[in-house]
Amino acid sequence: MSAGWFRRRFLPGGPLPEPQPAGPRSSPVPYHRPRFLRGSGSSPGAPDASRRPDSRPVRSPGRGRTLPWNAGYAEIINAEKSEFNEDQAACGKLCIRRCEFGIEEDQEWLTVCPEEFLTGHYWALFDGHGGPAAAILAANTLHSCLRRQLEAVVEGMMASQPPMHLSGRCVCSSDPQFVEEKGIRTEDLVIGALESAFQECDDVIGRELEASGQVGGCTALVAVSLQGKLYVANAGDSRAILVRRDEIRVLSSEFTPETERQRIQQLAFICPELLAGEFTRLQFPRRLKGDDVGQKVLFRDHHMNGWSYKQVEKSDLKYPLIHGQGRQARLLGTLAVSRGLGDHQLTVLDTNIQLKPFLLCIPQVTVLDVDQLARQEEDVVVMATDGLWDVLSNEQVAQLVRSFLTGNREDPHRFSELAKMLIHSTQGKDGAAGEGQVSYDDVSVFVIPLHNQGQGSYGH
Amino acid sequence: MSAGWFRRRFLPGGPLPEPQPAGPRSSPVPYHRPRFLRGSGSSPGAPDASRRPDSRPVRSPGRGRTLPWNAGYAEIINAEKSEFNEDQAACGKLCIRRCEFGIEEDQEWLTVCPEEFLTGHYWALFDGHGGPAAAILAANTLHSCLRRQLEAVVEGMMASQPPMHLSGRCVCSSDPQFVEEKGIRTEDLVIGALESAFQECDDVIGRELEASGQVGGCTALVAVSLQGKLYVANAGDSRAILVRRDEIRVLSSEFTPETERQRIQQLAFICPELLAGEFTRLQFPRRLKGDDVGQKVLFRDHHMNGWSYKQVEKSDLKYPLIHGQGRQARLLGTLAVSRGLGDHQLTVLDTNIQLKPFLLCIPQVTVLDVDQLARQEEDVVVMATDGLWDVLSNEQVAQLVRSFLTGNREDPHRFSELAKMLIHSTQGKDGAAGEGQVSYDDVSVFVIPLHNQGQGSYGH
Repeated sequence: MSAGWFRRRFLPGGPLPEPQPAGPRSSPVPYHRPRFLRGSGSSPGAPDASRRPDSRPVRSPGRGRTLPWNAGYAEIINAEKSEFNEDQAACGKLCIRRCEFGIEEDQEWLTVCPEEFLTGHYWALFDGHGGPAAAILAANTLHSCLRRQLEAVVEGMMASQPPMHLSGRCVCSSDPQFVEEKGIRTEDLVIGALESAFQECDDVIGRELEASGQVGGCTALVAVSLQGKLYVANAGDSRAILVRRDEIRVLSSEFTPETERQRIQQLAFICPELLAGEFTRLQFPRRLKGDDVGQKVLFRDHHMNGWSYKQVEKSDLKYPLIHGQGRQARLLGTLAVSRGLGDHQLTVLDTNIQLKPFLLCIPQVTVLDVDQLARQEEDVVVMATDGLWDVLSNEQVAQLVRSFLTGNREDPHRFSELAKMLIHSTQGKDGAAGEGQVSYDDVSVFVIPLHNQGQGSYGH
Repeated sequence: MSAGWFRRRFLPGGPLPEPQPAGPRSSPVPYHRPRFLRGSGSSPGAPDASRRPDSRPVRSPGRGRTLPWNAGYAEIINAEKSEFNEDQAACGKLCIRRCEFGIEEDQEWLTVCPEEFLTGHYWALFDGHGGPAAAILAANTLHSCLRRQLEAVVEGMMASQPPMHLSGRCVCSSDPQFVEEKGIRTEDLVIGALESAFQECDDVIGRELEASGQVGGCTALVAVSLQGKLYVANAGDSRAILVRRDEIRVLSSEFTPETERQRIQQLAFICPELLAGEFTRLQFPRRLKGDDVGQKVLFRDHHMNGWSYKQVEKSDLKYPLIHGQGRQARLLGTLAVSRGLGDHQLTVLDTNIQLKPFLLCIPQVTVLDVDQLARQEEDVVVMATDGLWDVLSNEQVAQLVRSFLTGNREDPHRFSELAKMLIHSTQGKDGAAGEGQVSYDDVSVFVIPLHNQGQGSYGH
C-alpha cells in the first residue's frame, strides 16, 4: 500500500466506497458447505433433541473421506438465527512449487521445476457475519493466496537463514550478518506469508463482494504444517489449543473490540473524523445518561491501561466507540470482532460511518515446533469457532478430549468421533461434560492429531 | 486532550512548535544532583581507576541520610560524553491527603482533613538526553504530579472496589455490577494515576523548556509503594527487576524504536506527512543502496511480525524511520528511546520533521503484590538506568546481589554498599563480577529491600 493510502481511502475527501459498482454485476457467491462434507451423513443433534422441534444435525465427513493427518471435523448449524450456516471450513494439502531466478539479463522468474517442491497441510475455519458470502469466499480463496505467497519466498526458506536478497547473491559482504543481527529465521518468512495471504484474501473478498453486490465479513483461523512446524494464524474470535496428557497450550488469542481497545481508541484519537461526531472514543463502565453529567465517573482513554475519573460533559453521552461487555461488546455498536476478512462496505446503521478502518485483516501467528515436541500419542490441536468456547472452557475441552481418546484407542475414526462429541457437548448434555450450557451459535471443530502426522491425503 | 488535538498539533496546517516563545524567557533550569546526595561523600571509581586520568567518583548518600525503606542508591557520571550527569534521581514519602465532596449544592471539593491520609513511598530514575534539563524538571516535578493525581481519586481507592461515581452515590442501581463486570480494581486507579501523572509531567516539561529556551528529554522509571503493593512505571530503557534467593522477576520492559516498531510504523502509515517524504517507514535488515534497486530484499511493514521480500524501488533508498540494531537503533536517525518525557521541540537535524508525535510519555505499569509475597530477608528490587544493563545481565546482577547480601548480613548500610558495588561492577573489574565490560554511560542504581519496608523516613 502506498503512502497516504489510509487517508485517501477513509478520511473526508477520499473516495467513498461504492455501494453500487458501475461495472457489470457478477453473480452472487453460491452457498455451499465445505467440499469435504460431500456425501457425508449426519447424526442427530443434542441427545435431548426432543426438546427442540428443529432438531439440528451434526455433520462430519463421510467415513470414506480422510482429512489431512487423519484430522476429525464436525459442525452444527444454529437453527434460530438464520437458515444458512455462517461458519465455513477448508482443509487440504499445500503444494509449494519451487521457482528460480532466470538468467541475470532479464531478471524474470522462471518456473524451472513445476512439480511439488515443499508440501504442507492446511486447516481453516471461517465464522461469517452479515451473511455467508465472505466466509465462502475465504474458504475458496485463502489457501491459494497462501500458496502464492509461500511460492514467492520459498527460495528464501531453503537456507538455514533467509538471505537478504531472495536471489541469494550478496550485494554487501556483511548482508548475512545484518540478517543474523535482526534474528530473522525461516519461520519469519512463513509468518510473513501468512500475514500477506490474509491481506491478499481480504482484497479479493472486497472486490468480489463489491462486484456481486453482496456484503459481510468473517473471522479466520488457520493452521498450517510446514517443515516440521505448525503455524496457527488467527484473525477474530475463534480459538486453537494444544491438548496433551498433562498440558494445555493456547495457540491463539481472540481479537475483539475489548481486547483491541487501545488500538481502536488510538486510531479514533488520531483520526477523530472517523467517528463523525456521533461516537465518543472514551470508555466508561456503562453508557452514560443525563443524570451522570457533572459527576466524576470512571473512564479510560486510548493511552490508559488503568482507570481514572472524569467529570462528565454532554459530549460524553454520545454512543461509545466500544460498548458492552464480553460477548455483548460491540465496535461502533455494530461488530463483535475487531479482526477478520471482508466488511469493506459495512457502515453503522443509518450513517456513513465506516467500520473497515478500525478492523485489521492481519492475523496473529503462533508457531508450534512439532518436531521438537516430545510427542505423545494423544496430542491433538483443537480448533473451533467461538460457539464452542462460549460454552466450554479450555479445561473442559481438554478433559473431554483426554477421556474420549483414552477410551477409544482402537477406533480409526476416533478423531472424527471426538469432533462430533465436542459438538454434542455444546448442545447442553453429554456424558463426559455433564449438564452444561447450550450454544445457539454455529459451531465448527477440527481435531488435528499430531502423532500421526503425514497420514491422510485429501487434496484440494 | 480534545478530539483532533493530534492532527492540529502535528499535521500540516497545525501550529508549528515555536522555538522562540513570545513571552518573557524564564531562567534556565539550574543543574544539580539529587537532593539526598547533599553532604555525601564519594568513593573512587573503578578499582583500576589508575587506568584513566579522569577518575570518576561513585556517589551515594551520606551515612546519616536514610532513604525510604533503607534503600541504597549510587551513581557514576560518564566522564567522556559530557560534563553533566544526565541521569537524575528522586525518592521520598508520598503523602496523599483525603478530600471529600462538599455539600451537594455547590459540588465543590473541600479539604476536610488536610493531614496525611494515605502514605506511600516513591523512588524514581530519569535518564536525560539532549541536555540535563528535562531529567532535572522530571525529578523536581513528577512526584507532585503523582500526588495530585492520586489525591484526585483517593476516595475511589478506599472501597474494596472503585465506585462508578467518585462521590460514591449510585445513579443507577446496577452501577456496582458494571464496575464488577469490567474487572476494575483499586490498583487500576493507581495505574491510571501513574499514567496521568506522566502525562501531566510531560506537559509541565514542555512548557518549562519552551519558556526557558532549553531542549531535551528523559526516560522515567518510577517505583511507588502504596497499600501493600509496589507499582513500577516505566517509560524508556531503564529497568527494574526483583531479585530473590531463587527467582528473578522482571518488573519493566524497555521501550525503544525496535520494541515499539509496529506502533511507530503504524502512525507513519496513517499520517505519512509526518515523514515529509524524507524517510521510508519500511524496515530492511540494513539501509538500502543503489545496487539493491530491482532486487527482492527482506522487509517488513507496520502490520507484519514476520518478514517478506519486496522488489526494491528508488523510494526505498530513503533513510529508514527506524534504523540500526540494538543499542544503535534510532528513531528517525535521532533518538534511541521511544517513550519518555520532554523532547517537545526535537526535530531531525536540518529538517522540520518532529520526533514528538512518535514518542509516548505514558508508562507501562506492572504491579508487585508485596503483601502476598512470601518475603525473604534478602528480597530486593534493583532499579537502574540503561548504563548498568548494557554491561550486566539480569542474572549477573542477581548473582552479585545474592552473594553481596549473604556476605554482609550485619551491615546497616548494606543496601547502600550494594548499590555502590553494582556501580563499581560496571567499571570493568570487580571481585564478584570478574573481568567485565565497561559502561561509559551515566549509571544510577536504587536497591530497594522489601523485607524492611516501613523503615527509613526521608521525606521530600
